[in-house]
Amino acid sequence: MSSSSAAPPAKPPMRDALVAAAFRLFVERGYEQTTVDDIVALAGVGRRSFFRYFPSKEDVVFPDHEGCLADMTAFLAAGDPQCEPVRRVCDAARLVLRMYAENPAFSVQRYRLTKQVPGLRAYELSVVWRYERALAEYLRGRYAGRPDGTLRADVIAAAVVAAHNNALRSWLRSDGRSDADETVDHALGYVQDAFGTGSAAPAGPAPGGAPAALFGGPVEHPDDVVVLVSRRDAPLWRVVQEIETAFGRT
Amino acid sequence: MSSSSAAPPAKPPMRDALVAAAFRLFVERGYEQTTVDDIVALAGVGRRSFFRYFPSKEDVVFPDHEGCLADMTAFLAAGDPQCEPVRRVCDAARLVLRMYAENPAFSVQRYRLTKQVPGLRAYELSVVWRYERALAEYLRGRYAGRPDGTLRADVIAAAVVAAHNNALRSWLRSDGRSDADETVDHALGYVQDAFGTGSAAPAGPAPGGAPAALFGGPVEHPDDVVVLVSRRDAPLWRVVQEIETAFGRT
Repeated sequence: MSSSSAAPPAKPPMRDALVAAAFRLFVERGYEQTTVDDIVALAGVGRRSFFRYFPSKEDVVFPDHEGCLADMTAFLAAGDPQCEPVRRVCDAARLVLRMYAENPAFSVQRYRLTKQVPGLRAYELSVVWRYERALAEYLRGRYAGRPDGTLRADVIAAAVVAAHNNALRSWLRSDGRSDADETVDHALGYVQDAFGTGSAAPAGPAPGGAPAALFGGPVEHPDDVVVLVSRRDAPLWRVVQEIETAFGRT
Repeated sequence: MSSSSAAPPAKPPMRDALVAAAFRLFVERGYEQTTVDDIVALAGVGRRSFFRYFPSKEDVVFPDHEGCLADMTAFLAAGDPQCEPVRRVCDAARLVLRMYAENPAFSVQRYRLTKQVPGLRAYELSVVWRYERALAEYLRGRYAGRPDGTLRADVIAAAVVAAHNNALRSWLRSDGRSDADETVDHALGYVQDAFGTGSAAPAGPAPGGAPAALFGGPVEHPDDVVVLVSRRDAPLWRVVQEIETAFGRT
């Protein structure tokens, strides 16, 4: 997050020129028909310059993922140990959407290209897998020592990535015209409702005492009786968690 | 499921011989050092026979996924339209674990091989993605017309796959000695608790509707809200038990 609040460091112009040349050729000739030699000729640089920035032709299609993965890892490592873990990984996923949304035209062009080239789809799967592992590793650390800690971490990381990708695809299919932030907030909100413990604010009755989306929260009775209101389709573990809080057993 | 209730059709012996020869060489020489020519020489067949069964050397490492994907798709298509969708995709995921558990020695050997060869890990990611898409497509159909139908479908499919893979890895790391069914049931139970609507039995008040010792009993609201009343000093396990009954999850 911190990197986006200040101006990003300027990217090497040669790197940008290589990406621009590559995409111009991919669109004109097709991905498979374009060689690294074609790209460097158009960009006016040597082959060694290409491979200084990109290990392979596939990497020039996804020039920002390595940086984004590094940003995500740093963002997770810098988190307050008290912050709600599901919220934290949702915020980490927003970094990825922001990377796409910073350059809608390029992202939409790449989306179309990736759909046509099986090798690029395979590359993308491996990138998605790395994001998912970064989120899961963070959650495994946060849930260490809890029953089913690794299971919970793996499932939530996968759910966050799936929600993010659902929002991303929806935004790409709108040709980058829909509101990316709104779309991803909505998708991640679904995962937070299913797995998160919600806001950092203490659990309690919603204003006016009306049942909230998930819980009305515990209502205290004078004779030491607890009343809980829940939606029937609420996840059982969340109900138990809420009860533990209401009974003062956490 | 149906295919597992009857004896499976016999596999072509030549196909099995090719898989056996391939794995013997992969273990002895390493995956990269083994060619298709080496495999067919050891199996005593021609190259054309190899490619009749396997499009590439990678495919011989995962000889059963295509069949399992077809079984899964058929299983999902054959489902009662009234069945609970999350439960159905969990049952579909169990087909994959069963495929692994049918041949523990082979599965453990492949697990070790896959960890060492990046190309095989990439292949595995693409297979996992196809399973996830099959589950998501089924759920998208079931949730069609519901708000957030595709979001819900994608997130639940990813969660089911992650839970399955967590259980599978745990079983593989035990060298196939732990109870595969128990492990996957537990992992999928976590996803069902988070997303499923529980048992097929209609949820409702406990028989008789009389207040139990602990609870005033669930009170049904028209909008599917459950109200629970409990003494604060009640044992937590009894509270949970009562809730499970109220939510129709036992």
